[in-house]
Amino acid sequence: MAGNTIGKMFKVTTWGESHGTAVGVVIDGCPPRLSLNSQTIQTMLDRRRPGSSMASTQRREKDRAMILSGVFNGLTTGTPIMIMVENTDADSKAYEPHAAVFRPGHGDYTYQAKYGIRDWRGGGRASARETVGRVAAGAVAKTVLDRQNVRVAAYTIELGGIPATRRNLDVIEQNMFCCPDLDAAELMKKRVKEIKEQGDSIGGIVEILVSKVPKGLGEPVFDKLDAELAKALMSIGAVKGVEIGAGFRSSKLLGSENNDPITPQGFRTNNAGGILAGISNGEDIIMRVAVKPIPSIAIEQETVDHEGQARSISVKGRHDIAAIPRINIVCEAMVSIVLADHLLRQKAIQY
Amino acid sequence: MAGNTIGKMFKVTTWGESHGTAVGVVIDGCPPRLSLNSQTIQTMLDRRRPGSSMASTQRREKDRAMILSGVFNGLTTGTPIMIMVENTDADSKAYEPHAAVFRPGHGDYTYQAKYGIRDWRGGGRASARETVGRVAAGAVAKTVLDRQNVRVAAYTIELGGIPATRRNLDVIEQNMFCCPDLDAAELMKKRVKEIKEQGDSIGGIVEILVSKVPKGLGEPVFDKLDAELAKALMSIGAVKGVEIGAGFRSSKLLGSENNDPITPQGFRTNNAGGILAGISNGEDIIMRVAVKPIPSIAIEQETVDHEGQARSISVKGRHDIAAIPRINIVCEAMVSIVLADHLLRQKAIQY
Amino acid sequence: MAGNTIGKMFKVTTWGESHGTAVGVVIDGCPPRLSLNSQTIQTMLDRRRPGSSMASTQRREKDRAMILSGVFNGLTTGTPIMIMVENTDADSKAYEPHAAVFRPGHGDYTYQAKYGIRDWRGGGRASARETVGRVAAGAVAKTVLDRQNVRVAAYTIELGGIPATRRNLDVIEQNMFCCPDLDAAELMKKRVKEIKEQGDSIGGIVEILVSKVPKGLGEPVFDKLDAELAKALMSIGAVKGVEIGAGFRSSKLLGSENNDPITPQGFRTNNAGGILAGISNGEDIIMRVAVKPIPSIAIEQETVDHEGQARSISVKGRHDIAAIPRINIVCEAMVSIVLADHLLRQKAIQY
Amino acid sequence: MAGNTIGKMFKVTTWGESHGTAVGVVIDGCPPRLSLNSQTIQTMLDRRRPGSSMASTQRREKDRAMILSGVFNGLTTGTPIMIMVENTDADSKAYEPHAAVFRPGHGDYTYQAKYGIRDWRGGGRASARETVGRVAAGAVAKTVLDRQNVRVAAYTIELGGIPATRRNLDVIEQNMFCCPDLDAAELMKKRVKEIKEQGDSIGGIVEILVSKVPKGLGEPVFDKLDAELAKALMSIGAVKGVEIGAGFRSSKLLGSENNDPITPQGFRTNNAGGILAGISNGEDIIMRVAVKPIPSIAIEQETVDHEGQARSISVKGRHDIAAIPRINIVCEAMVSIVLADHLLRQKAIQY
Repeated sequence: MAGNTIGKMFKVTTWGESHGTAVGVVIDGCPPRLSLNSQTIQTMLDRRRPGSSMASTQRREKDRAMILSGVFNGLTTGTPIMIMVENTDADSKAYEPHAAVFRPGHGDYTYQAKYGIRDWRGGGRASARETVGRVAAGAVAKTVLDRQNVRVAAYTIELGGIPATRRNLDVIEQNMFCCPDLDAAELMKKRVKEIKEQGDSIGGIVEILVSKVPKGLGEPVFDKLDAELAKALMSIGAVKGVEIGAGFRSSKLLGSENNDPITPQGFRTNNAGGILAGISNGEDIIMRVAVKPIPSIAIEQETVDHEGQARSISVKGRHDIAAIPRINIVCEAMVSIVLADHLLRQKAIQY
Repeated sequence: MAGNTIGKMFKVTTWGESHGTAVGVVIDGCPPRLSLNSQTIQTMLDRRRPGSSMASTQRREKDRAMILSGVFNGLTTGTPIMIMVENTDADSKAYEPHAAVFRPGHGDYTYQAKYGIRDWRGGGRASARETVGRVAAGAVAKTVLDRQNVRVAAYTIELGGIPATRRNLDVIEQNMFCCPDLDAAELMKKRVKEIKEQGDSIGGIVEILVSKVPKGLGEPVFDKLDAELAKALMSIGAVKGVEIGAGFRSSKLLGSENNDPITPQGFRTNNAGGILAGISNGEDIIMRVAVKPIPSIAIEQETVDHEGQARSISVKGRHDIAAIPRINIVCEAMVSIVLADHLLRQKAIQY
Repeated sequence: MAGNTIGKMFKVTTWGESHGTAVGVVIDGCPPRLSLNSQTIQTMLDRRRPGSSMASTQRREKDRAMILSGVFNGLTTGTPIMIMVENTDADSKAYEPHAAVFRPGHGDYTYQAKYGIRDWRGGGRASARETVGRVAAGAVAKTVLDRQNVRVAAYTIELGGIPATRRNLDVIEQNMFCCPDLDAAELMKKRVKEIKEQGDSIGGIVEILVSKVPKGLGEPVFDKLDAELAKALMSIGAVKGVEIGAGFRSSKLLGSENNDPITPQGFRTNNAGGILAGISNGEDIIMRVAVKPIPSIAIEQETVDHEGQARSISVKGRHDIAAIPRINIVCEAMVSIVLADHLLRQKAIQY
Repeated sequence: MAGNTIGKMFKVTTWGESHGTAVGVVIDGCPPRLSLNSQTIQTMLDRRRPGSSMASTQRREKDRAMILSGVFNGLTTGTPIMIMVENTDADSKAYEPHAAVFRPGHGDYTYQAKYGIRDWRGGGRASARETVGRVAAGAVAKTVLDRQNVRVAAYTIELGGIPATRRNLDVIEQNMFCCPDLDAAELMKKRVKEIKEQGDSIGGIVEILVSKVPKGLGEPVFDKLDAELAKALMSIGAVKGVEIGAGFRSSKLLGSENNDPITPQGFRTNNAGGILAGISNGEDIIMRVAVKPIPSIAIEQETVDHEGQARSISVKGRHDIAAIPRINIVCEAMVSIVLADHLLRQKAIQY
């Protein structure tokens, strides 16, 4: 119970169901006197909006961010910031046939097992729509990071098995997959088209890069920066794996290969991914997350209903083919939230 | 600051430095009337003790667990359980030459950057010795899990690039690498010998299997069970990646392959790794962590000292060649702690 | 920072400013499958509404409770419950003259000192209007308490120096001061009229009675039930003192007088006020809070402005003469919230 | 469950039972590079030691503070500080007759009701001996406060019904009751002698004064400074009431009397007790707590045993006649802990 808050000094609590009245977030602990208006939030929300990419759902929400508290004359006041987005285009009809049937790969089964009740409309609380609150909070977190010039970027490095072989961050916004490799993006486009026709779905890998990170962030031994980032990223619906720096590859390296030599000019390599012993070392933080394929597919699947009877299901509705690239901005938001929290926690050290 | 506690209802706080007087842990929130004595703790501690494997440090600690509070007449009382292990065999001399030099791959650099001071003896707080407290708490957590027959096992599935190709859990305790594949264990033995001679070190992959998990554990949307497990595992010093179920492999699957069909007899597959939408579904929980090679190596490495001057370092002392298999029991402990916490949190649902 | 949440398992976070768009609350951790609708909330909110008593402000808000999440088909789902009330009758004009002047006895001075900015409209976050969120959460908490038949009542036992000499709880709702003594209520009425004419204000004492409390609630040694209740009550704007059972009077008693003898039929007396060593003993919990006079008075007062220049101020606007009786329902709400939290926390014991 | 920690940035967790092996505390979040040694702790512990006053128990513990972690070369390192005191003079024999009998006014009854088990030796966890950990943590907190010259003092203003009529803080250490009025102290001495002969006990009132408090401490709306102080003080065993500034007296004042006028030179009065709207205003913080008489008395009392059978009890053993003055240092410690926590939390504002 009571697991809807993340952060200790920069505390983010999301609320809302997919087809309820609205979704939103309360941010408690944002420093006062930062410039903030609904446009800041809107810009970031627009990047996660359905329909902004070929791989995305057809649901069209205006997703208008409303700041209902915590801001006065365009400045934060240090009091809780509540941001809300109304659910204007929710169409629960498509979900009615599945009201008593568990969609494979979704939270239907486990929510029912845990709570003995679930809002089946659009996936209820387990819907990706909940991430609206995360992204709004991420926009506020970025305002906090901006003061120290910390930059967070998330981009697609693999989709449907097609890897990006370049890391040209300049082209991320030039293709619908937020891919740093335009050639790969072309192949991804074809792949998505193919999969769509098959009524199937795909996953991929997102990389998150944080630059200009101050040294010293992270609170060992449990609230280490990488541990907190891993939790934040793993709390995103479709994420099934998280790694930092050389990650799983480091398990195959020798100590002499994996250690990053230190020189008077800084670290010579960055296999650590910017974090040593749970504390940022001033290098770029680099993480990757494995994103599973969207579980809603048109292809028939075996399942059971609330009575445990065998059923077959084909999930039609308006669904994405891949969580990527919409999930990228959510990754970016979660990483920003954790960093903002740790920037504030680190202030206590400087007592 | 203040990051040394994990858990909300089953709260674990470790304290102590590698070469300080002692290391230990306070466990607050353990249910009353559970059988507990120092032998329970000792048995688990013995499994992480240095010198129990060929890959391990020569440091010989008796590691005698003392329970100083919270237990009366062999039963827990519901009050904080403090468990302490004295540091009897600490030899700080070997560390003196490096008192003002940052060992690559260790927390020396970041602790100094964060706190402006560090206990350089044996790595201080960043030493693997801190995990004594984790393992002791893990033994208490297992006592909690026992009441519901939940079982946690961790074993080596890759070491120095050599993979286990079988999962025969019966043989784990029959080889010094806790490997479920005796043939692979033989190859690992050779690999370790080789690396030792080179003065280098290796990493690997540990798999954690939880069986008989009740359905319904995990608290969306941030304290999801997989998110909390990821944090707990990533908070272990050498871990650089965490994945659940099909993990990174799921990013390459189609939705129709990755979804686990549900039948009246249960889930047909377990790509989810036992957790759906952050809540346990009753299947085995399966996770894997990437363990980096031990950073302390005899081979010369580039580094700098506190004044930023270039230095070269060869870390001799008594060091493991691999964190595996000693880290396995730490993984087991952390997973047990998270599960105990969530078993207790879940009680509130059953209000 | 980040102090707007109370509770660990039943977590309540309020947000909103007096003259912002809305005020509200997120409740995270409410058990699933409890009946809840906006009318439940509304009934409790109506009891704190301005204008319901002679001592109250003239501000007329409809205070319409909207439940925006966490409830499906009239039942709680175990997900966060967001309740919002719009600020429809806010008139900031009256506050403009004091935008840069600190009203004595209010939070103007300290909010400015702390945050370097404040929403001066209607007292901003420090306004009693914030308690709308508390009362809404209190209504949800009462739904939790109902399942165990726990009852919470708050009533006026002193106003403007006039004490109630009876405790007839049946008449509380029959007089505008929520006083359990109708004769005292008559005298209070005259006192209020008098004070109003003088442009001054008064305080008083509220007693809170909790009956049918299960034994065993409270988590020593810091989250003792009385400690948590004291915090919750002291967090209410006008409260300057809190006592339990014999309270300050117990400091003058002998041990032989103050101890409550235990008999096979139960406790013979209740000087402890229902809590021993921080844990409920099954007797009624009885607490009292000292409520200071409303700081907004028409009488001229000395103060300074943002530049530190001497100023004189007469606060006109639409203000209550006394926080009582509107504060009573807030006390009732806070006590209910703490009890709901501890009812849920206590479930973990019953593991 | 899990209620043995207080503080968010300066986190204090006590552990230990009266007649267990030891009692102690973990302090997580103490800033690095503060001077700290066991003598600092010892000096404060000596002030709470049994036998230091006529009203005190005959139990003689050396109470030797041992710092087992978190300090290196006389400086804090930013890692958890564990401080332990062994129980060397525990004599459980005196408690054996009451092993299955509930002592009135003690936690025996409620601990049994809550946990279904209790360490009856010396009161177990509910013993005042637990405050050793609080006082040790208070000494560390004072080291934090020192850096900003914040001063905390606690003194007796009433004992057994005898009030101090002066506030001469210079004489506090000159009398065994820590009373700021030497004449009253003389009368208290007689009173204690009298009561001792009767086999009874007495209570009193302690006042806590904090001077040189920075403006801006406290985190509305729930973690207000006065709310957190109230909780911390009410969590002390014998405390039954807490008030701040004019406290209960403010409930009888007019607004025009109670408001503290503000002048260019500061506040003209201090009825608020240094806190407005939950935030320190720079004036002295003044609080008072009601201390109940010690429940252990030689006089026969009615009670029941574990089977609910009527019993009579006369508690002999080595007991204080009054919790005052030993409780004063505990009050001082708790207030220091809360202030240290809020000094660190306030740093985040200054982001």
